[in-house]
Amino acid sequence: MELLDKLNWRYAAKAMNGNKVPQDKIDNIIEAISLSPTSSGLQPFEVIVITNQELKEKIRPVAWNQSVITDCSHLLVFAAWDTYTADRINKMFDLTNDIRGFKNDGWENYRQMLLGSYPQRDPEENFNHAAKQAYIAFSQAISAAAFQGLDSTPLEGFEADAVDKILGLREKGLRSCVMLPIGYRNESDDWLVNLKKVRKSKEDLVTVID
Amino acid sequence: MELLDKLNWRYAAKAMNGNKVPQDKIDNIIEAISLSPTSSGLQPFEVIVITNQELKEKIRPVAWNQSVITDCSHLLVFAAWDTYTADRINKMFDLTNDIRGFKNDGWENYRQMLLGSYPQRDPEENFNHAAKQAYIAFSQAISAAAFQGLDSTPLEGFEADAVDKILGLREKGLRSCVMLPIGYRNESDDWLVNLKKVRKSKEDLVTVID
Repeated sequence: MELLDKLNWRYAAKAMNGNKVPQDKIDNIIEAISLSPTSSGLQPFEVIVITNQELKEKIRPVAWNQSVITDCSHLLVFAAWDTYTADRINKMFDLTNDIRGFKNDGWENYRQMLLGSYPQRDPEENFNHAAKQAYIAFSQAISAAAFQGLDSTPLEGFEADAVDKILGLREKGLRSCVMLPIGYRNESDDWLVNLKKVRKSKEDLVTVID
Repeated sequence: MELLDKLNWRYAAKAMNGNKVPQDKIDNIIEAISLSPTSSGLQPFEVIVITNQELKEKIRPVAWNQSVITDCSHLLVFAAWDTYTADRINKMFDLTNDIRGFKNDGWENYRQMLLGSYPQRDPEENFNHAAKQAYIAFSQAISAAAFQGLDSTPLEGFEADAVDKILGLREKGLRSCVMLPIGYRNESDDWLVNLKKVRKSKEDLVTVID
């Protein structure tokens, strides 16, 4: 299966060479992010795509000074909704009705159920829930890069508050949760590139109940 | 790109026909889960693979009585570590040294850094972090199913505490976080199968900073 080949090929690049990724490849990654499933179809996140070098230079110091931040081609920042609001929920339900061309009682009841529970919850709980949906898309972005021979670096090591400030995310009701620099590996500078992939045994990963 | 074709083909099946999925296809899904990247390579989750019909019948009532729970072939329950402990961290770092065949100062310093921070954190924060890693793998499992013409239903609608109890997860230091019934769609009973996929506009999803 091609997917397994690509997952085997990929690794978390620790050095990139600064070469630019063509726009059509980035578009495909965005499309994979867009197509990713999310809870109740809410897509509770946005993606900031940064090629601006000055901005990358600002982010690098609050991301453990990792070189891939500045040596990648495109830096993707996944920013989840800081909470669920009635407006945000209604917007997606209205869009669904618009696209499908009809209203449906079951769907409207489901909308009311979400409106009656999500906005009232602790914003931190909501943000955590939204961030998990962003991680589903983040995972597909990693695959979409690998399918196109692009390297990427799943990256959680950054000060989220500082990144939020640099990008003005809080004012938009967003909080950064994970990053994905995309570009091309620099093999000669990358300590990880030639090391074996390590995974725990299937016995430690899976329990089968037949 | 084949990945986009598969993401377009898939949908959250709302009815399945009970047919059995061959073991080799499940093995491929497990392999995709195993190959998924996780923070610091800790793979902080396990997957319970349930074909036992009696057990599925027990879970269905605590999962909004959704029929896919019992009509799927294999029910995958993703269970994240309830917290990070020194033992769990050391086990993965030791495994890495074993597989790669050497010890490295940088890697050992990184181990100490994690040991000095993760186990001391609030278990709820750790579980949330571990669950996000499980979602990365969950996302790949959805793709791996689609690549093999299998349907799956991303499913968060269940009482996690009840599922933990039924599966005895807490005693193992695990907490269920998301489920994935896998099987074959039952088109005649599925209200969702013929409806248009709904996604927000790229303008609402992406901000580009050049």
